[in-house]
Amino acid sequence: MARTASLSGFPEWLPEERLVELHVLDTLRRVFELHGFSSIETRAVETVGQLLRKGEIDKEVYGLSRLQDDDAADAASHKADPNALALHFDLTVPFARYVVENAGYLAFPFRRYQIQKVWRGERPQEGRAREFTQADIDIVGDGDLPFRYDVEIALVIAEALGALPIPDFLLRINNRKLAEGFYNGIGLTDTAGVLRSIDKLEKIGPAKVAELLKSELGASDEQAQAALKLASIRTEDTSFVEQVRALGVSNELLEEGLAELEQVIAAAVQRAPGKVVADLSIARGLDYYTGTVVETVLVGHEQLGSICSGGRYDALASKGNRKFPGVGLSIGVTRLVSRILSQDLAKATRSVPTAVLVALNSDDSWGAAQDVAAELRSRGIATEVAAKAEKFGKQIKFADRRGIPFVWFTDDDGKHQVKDIRSGEQVDADPATWAPAPEDLNVRVLKA
Amino acid sequence: MARTASLSGFPEWLPEERLVELHVLDTLRRVFELHGFSSIETRAVETVGQLLRKGEIDKEVYGLSRLQDDDAADAASHKADPNALALHFDLTVPFARYVVENAGYLAFPFRRYQIQKVWRGERPQEGRAREFTQADIDIVGDGDLPFRYDVEIALVIAEALGALPIPDFLLRINNRKLAEGFYNGIGLTDTAGVLRSIDKLEKIGPAKVAELLKSELGASDEQAQAALKLASIRTEDTSFVEQVRALGVSNELLEEGLAELEQVIAAAVQRAPGKVVADLSIARGLDYYTGTVVETVLVGHEQLGSICSGGRYDALASKGNRKFPGVGLSIGVTRLVSRILSQDLAKATRSVPTAVLVALNSDDSWGAAQDVAAELRSRGIATEVAAKAEKFGKQIKFADRRGIPFVWFTDDDGKHQVKDIRSGEQVDADPATWAPAPEDLNVRVLKA
Repeated sequence: MARTASLSGFPEWLPEERLVELHVLDTLRRVFELHGFSSIETRAVETVGQLLRKGEIDKEVYGLSRLQDDDAADAASHKADPNALALHFDLTVPFARYVVENAGYLAFPFRRYQIQKVWRGERPQEGRAREFTQADIDIVGDGDLPFRYDVEIALVIAEALGALPIPDFLLRINNRKLAEGFYNGIGLTDTAGVLRSIDKLEKIGPAKVAELLKSELGASDEQAQAALKLASIRTEDTSFVEQVRALGVSNELLEEGLAELEQVIAAAVQRAPGKVVADLSIARGLDYYTGTVVETVLVGHEQLGSICSGGRYDALASKGNRKFPGVGLSIGVTRLVSRILSQDLAKATRSVPTAVLVALNSDDSWGAAQDVAAELRSRGIATEVAAKAEKFGKQIKFADRRGIPFVWFTDDDGKHQVKDIRSGEQVDADPATWAPAPEDLNVRVLKA
Repeated sequence: MARTASLSGFPEWLPEERLVELHVLDTLRRVFELHGFSSIETRAVETVGQLLRKGEIDKEVYGLSRLQDDDAADAASHKADPNALALHFDLTVPFARYVVENAGYLAFPFRRYQIQKVWRGERPQEGRAREFTQADIDIVGDGDLPFRYDVEIALVIAEALGALPIPDFLLRINNRKLAEGFYNGIGLTDTAGVLRSIDKLEKIGPAKVAELLKSELGASDEQAQAALKLASIRTEDTSFVEQVRALGVSNELLEEGLAELEQVIAAAVQRAPGKVVADLSIARGLDYYTGTVVETVLVGHEQLGSICSGGRYDALASKGNRKFPGVGLSIGVTRLVSRILSQDLAKATRSVPTAVLVALNSDDSWGAAQDVAAELRSRGIATEVAAKAEKFGKQIKFADRRGIPFVWFTDDDGKHQVKDIRSGEQVDADPATWAPAPEDLNVRVLKA
């Protein structure tokens, strides 16, 4: 990408770049639908009260006000008004609201995918935009949700990511019950605080995390070391269970977490080999996760940050006594596509959908040319008609400049020929039967 | 739709309603790509200065401010700051900005489609939401743009609308040059003012429009009557030309407009019979149109307002001396989909993408069931696996509740059977070869 966004943090793609993004979106949709996920969209706008319900994230939120509204509140009072409108910053919180509002119309467990833009007012940097697209899948139950869905959703995401034109990836999976049980077992009770500190491991390193645990959470040196030891465990199979047990901590919640994570990893070893690890350093910042937690790195692009994150949330959505536990994962589409484009990891085979340009013989031949085009289109061949009867050389040049591979000629006697302008080969052709080679029919996106 | 949006003006669809919307969006995309239009998206956000560049529309615009920004301006100063951010209210103004910014990277004439949400802070009512999806096609030239594209774009839109599960529609087409030339010819020089008055014809009727023309624009009774006579002309063929000439006004611009509109209507009579009329009452409110103008009604649903509007704009985008004239049309997707849903004009054949539920024989059979599912999916059959080994009756009921037509059973000996739960028919099946009937493979959306 030679270009920079004209508004920092709000990337826009050129048409040939957009083809790569479309390919990513189409691929994800296909995999999600093959696994029975229904599409929904939620409005871009939530109330401030809804968005801030689950913790301290208001730093990132864009508030809305009608420019012409003379009573419009200023930003300060906007923040204070829970009914004020703001743009959503993820798709999980809006989805939880949607489920609660429409519970009477949904069949549970409800499986949905949702591909939409979200907005965060953070400082833009590589891999972090202010406007970006997320692709989420979630399964939500009414009352309870079998743990098996945690396993399934990890496998679906591994399949979806595997279908994209991206380098190898690795799902790093942990379980909050395991971590919380362990911390409780060693006598650290502010588990949210410990998780927040552990979440900083990659940024500040183990020594500083130990400092934090001691200074901010009153951990002893021993407790801090035990927490760090747990976070250092990372296995490609279920051997993490033994390694955790070897730390000699016993706690019921810990056992539950171990059993859950073991199920996920055991299934992944079999069904998505090499794509998943148990990584006990994964904490996830957001408060609403209650079990499985996932982050995903692109191998060789670790500094890009997680390209797919999420987990289990048992208490995000509820309606009176009715609870809607869920599990879901969110792919950072813009982050992925930015990387694909900036490092030329994949490319479209041409820059326009058009396969054929029908050239004009004379200005009067426009109607006849439209007839040819309509016949080709009726067989799925994307076709344009030239607007001016310029010299053929000029019309061919026009096709070349737009990246259109074939030019169609009809002479005054109604004889048709089609030219592959890449090879120069020109052959007789019948608009009712001619077709380009299958690889030229539609734009394809190929991994570099 | 029994439900009302939880936030007035921000509609959200249930999964089976979203299937109808997806069908509409997929159909439009397919037609647009077959005609060689490239997909682009622009950011949701523009600067206030950019949005208000072309006239008085700030009433409708949502301004943005970061909730956490302590220096955030209040709404009043926000309005005054041309660099403040706001949500786009259409896709034409952002597209013009995109073309100017990326002119060096685009091949002209540049054909693009753009399907995105836009926002307007207007009072919500039937057919008018605050958040809604538009599907636009435009062709933009560098320096000049042959008039032929005006003809083409009307035909593409007629084809696209014709492919949707909607009632008959009618493109009502006029030409600003024709109208302006005529007004000039009868001595009315504030043509923008006359157009604004004529634009109110359907709302307030001819008598009141005549009043307006006289009181606000200083028209004589004769001039007002002539302007109304012009606006009363409506023909299904090119006979409007004679009718206009019969009014005895001569003006160069008028002749140019007549010739242009004649071209569009002549082509439409031939290539989209019954879908297009010349309607000289069409004015379009927006200032940037310079030639062809289009509005579209759904026959029998006229009070819904225009479902597809646009026209020619020769001066919307420019970069120094370089001009980028364009022509485009915009389909109101949300308006259409709302109407389809509220009047049951079309319906999805089922409510989920899933064709097959693989039942569980025992809790241990989940892995084997996943194998069956993977084999079906590899052949494009959307498949879910049950999460719990409940009684078969319960698993069938689960499929029924979710709208899944087939349930797959594998007994302990590995014998496979599949049941069509609509007919009750159950047959032996091989996961490597079985397929549902073509009409059951994917969700289809059928016109009522």
